[in-house]
Amino acid sequence: MLPEPAPEWHTTAWLNTPQPLELAQLRGKVVLLHAFQMLCPGCVAHGIPQAQRVAKLFEGAPLAVVGLHTVFEHHAAMGPESLRAFLYEYRVTFPVGIDAPGPDGDPIPCTMRAYAMQGTPTAILIDAQGRLRRQVFGQYDDLLLGAELGALLVEARQSSAAAVDAQAAEGCSDDRCARGP
Amino acid sequence: MLPEPAPEWHTTAWLNTPQPLELAQLRGKVVLLHAFQMLCPGCVAHGIPQAQRVAKLFEGAPLAVVGLHTVFEHHAAMGPESLRAFLYEYRVTFPVGIDAPGPDGDPIPCTMRAYAMQGTPTAILIDAQGRLRRQVFGQYDDLLLGAELGALLVEARQSSAAAVDAQAAEGCSDDRCARGP
Amino acid sequence: MLPEPAPEWHTTAWLNTPQPLELAQLRGKVVLLHAFQMLCPGCVAHGIPQAQRVAKLFEGAPLAVVGLHTVFEHHAAMGPESLRAFLYEYRVTFPVGIDAPGPDGDPIPCTMRAYAMQGTPTAILIDAQGRLRRQVFGQYDDLLLGAELGALLVEARQSSAAAVDAQAAEGCSDDRCARGP
Amino acid sequence: MLPEPAPEWHTTAWLNTPQPLELAQLRGKVVLLHAFQMLCPGCVAHGIPQAQRVAKLFEGAPLAVVGLHTVFEHHAAMGPESLRAFLYEYRVTFPVGIDAPGPDGDPIPCTMRAYAMQGTPTAILIDAQGRLRRQVFGQYDDLLLGAELGALLVEARQSSAAAVDAQAAEGCSDDRCARGP
Repeated sequence: MLPEPAPEWHTTAWLNTPQPLELAQLRGKVVLLHAFQMLCPGCVAHGIPQAQRVAKLFEGAPLAVVGLHTVFEHHAAMGPESLRAFLYEYRVTFPVGIDAPGPDGDPIPCTMRAYAMQGTPTAILIDAQGRLRRQVFGQYDDLLLGAELGALLVEARQSSAAAVDAQAAEGCSDDRCARGP
Repeated sequence: MLPEPAPEWHTTAWLNTPQPLELAQLRGKVVLLHAFQMLCPGCVAHGIPQAQRVAKLFEGAPLAVVGLHTVFEHHAAMGPESLRAFLYEYRVTFPVGIDAPGPDGDPIPCTMRAYAMQGTPTAILIDAQGRLRRQVFGQYDDLLLGAELGALLVEARQSSAAAVDAQAAEGCSDDRCARGP
Repeated sequence: MLPEPAPEWHTTAWLNTPQPLELAQLRGKVVLLHAFQMLCPGCVAHGIPQAQRVAKLFEGAPLAVVGLHTVFEHHAAMGPESLRAFLYEYRVTFPVGIDAPGPDGDPIPCTMRAYAMQGTPTAILIDAQGRLRRQVFGQYDDLLLGAELGALLVEARQSSAAAVDAQAAEGCSDDRCARGP
Repeated sequence: MLPEPAPEWHTTAWLNTPQPLELAQLRGKVVLLHAFQMLCPGCVAHGIPQAQRVAKLFEGAPLAVVGLHTVFEHHAAMGPESLRAFLYEYRVTFPVGIDAPGPDGDPIPCTMRAYAMQGTPTAILIDAQGRLRRQVFGQYDDLLLGAELGALLVEARQSSAAAVDAQAAEGCSDDRCARGP
């Protein structure tokens, strides 16, 4: 079964970034989308620290860590003001989008629904071509997450090299121009 | 230096208990007062789980674990609604009082000021006679906390036995009445 | 049920101490006897580090941590030479006695038999009067061990004060001699 | 710089395998060679459990975990008899070779010398073509080790597919024979 394009995310606000992030902008990068709730114990104990370690260990690689605050319970307790304080206190520095509320009183927010997430934390891996490659609900073993990221980064380098080749073949480099196939 | 009576706490509301708790009611019990903020990472990772383990391991002993939510920053982010959801999600079942705001715009709440706490988490040990015996800011080694509790529990048993003796000596038992010294 | 005197230990050699240790010498101190085998995973992961932390945290208190290498399997693999290297590599600095082999081909060594230990690690608490107060096979929660040590240390201080009183009452101090009761 | 062929290992005995293992036999598989000493605390606490987790998590993948007991101190304390008991007690089930002693009284064993290891634990990654790709002395972060393994496994699959293509191109399949280039 071939991987499908990852659904676009739908958000109402972003923290830790001057501009809202769109998935399409991240083409060419492996994306770790970390969906969490600030009052979810498993997110606080495992998921968020893991996402932070990924962001730090793979700094310099074509990899983006993106948070998604996707609240499906205790809505009043986890508003943007509380989230902002939470991110500050936990030293979370990667961009975090706030999942848009579900339509017509659906308690499940839009992006959570679009990805059919079972709950939080959920780690979602999207390849450099924007395709959904892995979705893990609950604790995600570091070795397995690392293996997945390592494999996707190899693919990203190869497809980027192929893209450069294709571009070279079709387009102009410093000393020559080639017509397309 | 003899231990001093522990300052009374000042609270605006209580969770996990049908009635507000007063320190005086706990005479005869060793008290572990755990002061925390729900968005303080050290409280969530160490202090609160430790208080929960104490409550569970010493069930049946004359020991009370009491939480104190003492917010000195991000006030809007940690209101009662958020605290209630936090306690629910983290399965905190011991009584938790909300420290009263400081007077005249003092950002430090009343009880935190009365005990001159340096921050959160702070563990405070009060003996069975209501005296302040130990105050530890930051991580508190389980072995040391255990040793302190073990010592205070021995004292509590002894002073309770002594109180019974004194009562017997001074007052009336079933079959006799004695005058005081 | 009153606590019984702890059985004397029987050893063939000692490491980390110039002289063999006898239980009787430790009267007046709380004793944590930690029985282990160098190839027992639970001892290496939990028991020995815990004994080391106790030795360090209670330095200065009337408390002695004593190791007992009590081998009941793989005897050839855990001889004195291997034990010496093990203690060196794991930075174990408290005294360690080697439990004497069982008589007549009994695979269970003498002290292990005398205390009816179920295996390793076993933590044994002996009070300042040389009485066996607690014996725990397997992992021993830090809070509970701490509480037990704290209680025994209070007792030790009290019985030591009582002994001083009794001595003062009965015997001679620098400036006076008193007859006994 | 192109990766070089990994040096062959030199061993005197093997445990957990009916036949001695040679590196050449493992062509086509990614190899995690875990060099350790049974009395090295970092190996026992981190390295060996990590190697065991890799063996279990990547079961079914073209990946071999191989242990190397490479003793450069306390030789008498870590003989084959002790190692055998150690592997049994720690439930280590991957094959373990015993590094051959250094020639002419060199305290450093042969394979440790050939790989210029700095000590134990050392994790060594060898790709499916038998080339040395990574060597890490000390603690190796699970995420980074996982990423390296994931990347090498992608390469292994690709080179295996390429080998099949090359074979098809050069050699005989069921229904045809092709001459080489």
